[in-house]
Amino acid sequence: MATFNRVVLASRPTGPVVLENFRLETAPVPTCGEGQVLVRIHYLSLDPYMRGRMNEGKSYAPAQALNETMVGGTVGEVVQSRHDKFKFGDKVVGMAGWQEYQRVDAAERGVLQRVDTTHIPLPAYLGVVGMPGVTAWYGLKKIIAPKAGDTVVVSAASGAVGGVVGQMAKTQGCRAVGIAGGKAKCDYVVKELGLDACVDYKSARDSKELYAMLKAETPDGVDGYFENVGGEILDTVMRRMNAFSRIAFCGMIAGYDGQPIPMKNPSLILVNRMKMEGFIVYEHREVWPQALRELGGWVAAGKIKYRETIAQGLENAPQAFIGLLRGANFGKQLVKLI
Amino acid sequence: MATFNRVVLASRPTGPVVLENFRLETAPVPTCGEGQVLVRIHYLSLDPYMRGRMNEGKSYAPAQALNETMVGGTVGEVVQSRHDKFKFGDKVVGMAGWQEYQRVDAAERGVLQRVDTTHIPLPAYLGVVGMPGVTAWYGLKKIIAPKAGDTVVVSAASGAVGGVVGQMAKTQGCRAVGIAGGKAKCDYVVKELGLDACVDYKSARDSKELYAMLKAETPDGVDGYFENVGGEILDTVMRRMNAFSRIAFCGMIAGYDGQPIPMKNPSLILVNRMKMEGFIVYEHREVWPQALRELGGWVAAGKIKYRETIAQGLENAPQAFIGLLRGANFGKQLVKLI
Repeated sequence: MATFNRVVLASRPTGPVVLENFRLETAPVPTCGEGQVLVRIHYLSLDPYMRGRMNEGKSYAPAQALNETMVGGTVGEVVQSRHDKFKFGDKVVGMAGWQEYQRVDAAERGVLQRVDTTHIPLPAYLGVVGMPGVTAWYGLKKIIAPKAGDTVVVSAASGAVGGVVGQMAKTQGCRAVGIAGGKAKCDYVVKELGLDACVDYKSARDSKELYAMLKAETPDGVDGYFENVGGEILDTVMRRMNAFSRIAFCGMIAGYDGQPIPMKNPSLILVNRMKMEGFIVYEHREVWPQALRELGGWVAAGKIKYRETIAQGLENAPQAFIGLLRGANFGKQLVKLI
Repeated sequence: MATFNRVVLASRPTGPVVLENFRLETAPVPTCGEGQVLVRIHYLSLDPYMRGRMNEGKSYAPAQALNETMVGGTVGEVVQSRHDKFKFGDKVVGMAGWQEYQRVDAAERGVLQRVDTTHIPLPAYLGVVGMPGVTAWYGLKKIIAPKAGDTVVVSAASGAVGGVVGQMAKTQGCRAVGIAGGKAKCDYVVKELGLDACVDYKSARDSKELYAMLKAETPDGVDGYFENVGGEILDTVMRRMNAFSRIAFCGMIAGYDGQPIPMKNPSLILVNRMKMEGFIVYEHREVWPQALRELGGWVAAGKIKYRETIAQGLENAPQAFIGLLRGANFGKQLVKLI
């Protein structure tokens, strides 16, 4: 009997994620009943939000269950179909999680979506033309809503979300300044993605120097900030925010591993009459068609560039995920399963 | 020659405000030139924002200058007029600051406004039908924007702003919960203002008990929070906020005296997809006519109640202001000058 691999959550992290939090399991490849479709997964998406799901307790989504397949976005190919909507060979986007095969009831709404790979490669549907891209689109367009001439700052600027935010800000006529860790990422952000500047936070000796570096690149202050990391970087950017500025809270990866990291000076919200808003892109389904249409157009036209870091084989997903949380990846982190 | 008194800023506070930060001065009563009006001030308004102005450095408004008359809202009566727009005996609202007389160029826009005291007493134009009332109106209507059934929490609930917020929330069909210091204030908030409950933060032994008290009064969580104080109370309310909840940042008095007080868990902004917005009511002049019309109607109809604490004589303004910052007042703090 044919078998396939999956990765389950073996234990919840008590601090940073370790390999022992995961377990590789084997299961028989299922066969399709009436109305079902079997998908061979080609790529698994690794995303920071998965870290939040690994904790117990209240968050915006239910916690990942122990001993169940880790959640996650996937792209793959239909290898068996007993539903009219899909046929053998269709390329599809889904949420199979960390596993090599997925069997779904094809009639269930939104569970599987056929995609066109004529102009856009399949894995891009997990990045710039997928959830991360729409996340960037929503936070920038709907929360920051910059006008030409504004200064927009984005952290994790070389990442799957941040890279799109910065390039979109440029298309809106903004000054776009990234924050990223290391010279290679900063060079990429400026030279390949075309942002006006990028602050390498790892090169700052202390928070005072980090502030000075950011100040030098934001001479007119900051009108919009797309927050992917939290912690000290948030505190530093807040000190540069202008009156009536906006912060879109998309991720706060710095605080995922333990005690929450305080915001040093919340009175700036009042002093600068700021607006802050947290969001989760899955709760704004109404914008997805427009966002994906625009993002797809930009990608096909070469106006939005992106980079991927690809781990090979499901068994390497846990290590790749730990690397992602440490910023070891460059651009969108994927796992290639075939 | 007739003289009058004024209070100037003698020195900037280094920590809590002390009497020595102020100095009482005497000056000759001015006479009016062509186009000018002389106003005898009846009431001076004391407000928390004045504390922020006493500090040096960047805030939302220029710092109060040393050796100049302290800023502040006032109501009074025209005692001399050389401008067609005003006549002897007119009741007027202005920004004379901490002094007994004010001479103004009547043509200057917005510097002086005649008010009708037929149904509304003169000092109410410094409170519920003035800046504090419009502040409550803006934060509740434009930022929190509650719908019927929502739970709205307001800190400093017996104060000039907070008292209006809570009563307005009731008129919108909300569950309204106040936070105030002491049994007398909480009794007033519930029994006289008609809020559903009031948490006496001074009766809590620690932050755990404060949280338990708030939780008991907000069984369905909190959908909107009108923030007047900051610090520990903000952290506590944030733990009760629901998904898609809103916080209007109006004041953060807890942090005015020294180092900024951190926000303990900003990741809740993301977890609960919250919206936070700071505002200053003077920057939203477009809503004043509507807000004042609605507030005036409610006050004249007895639907919004309020209370005043009145100090007598300009020489007692500094002590009354220090009391206000400590929460010693009850409702709107005024100084009666005649």
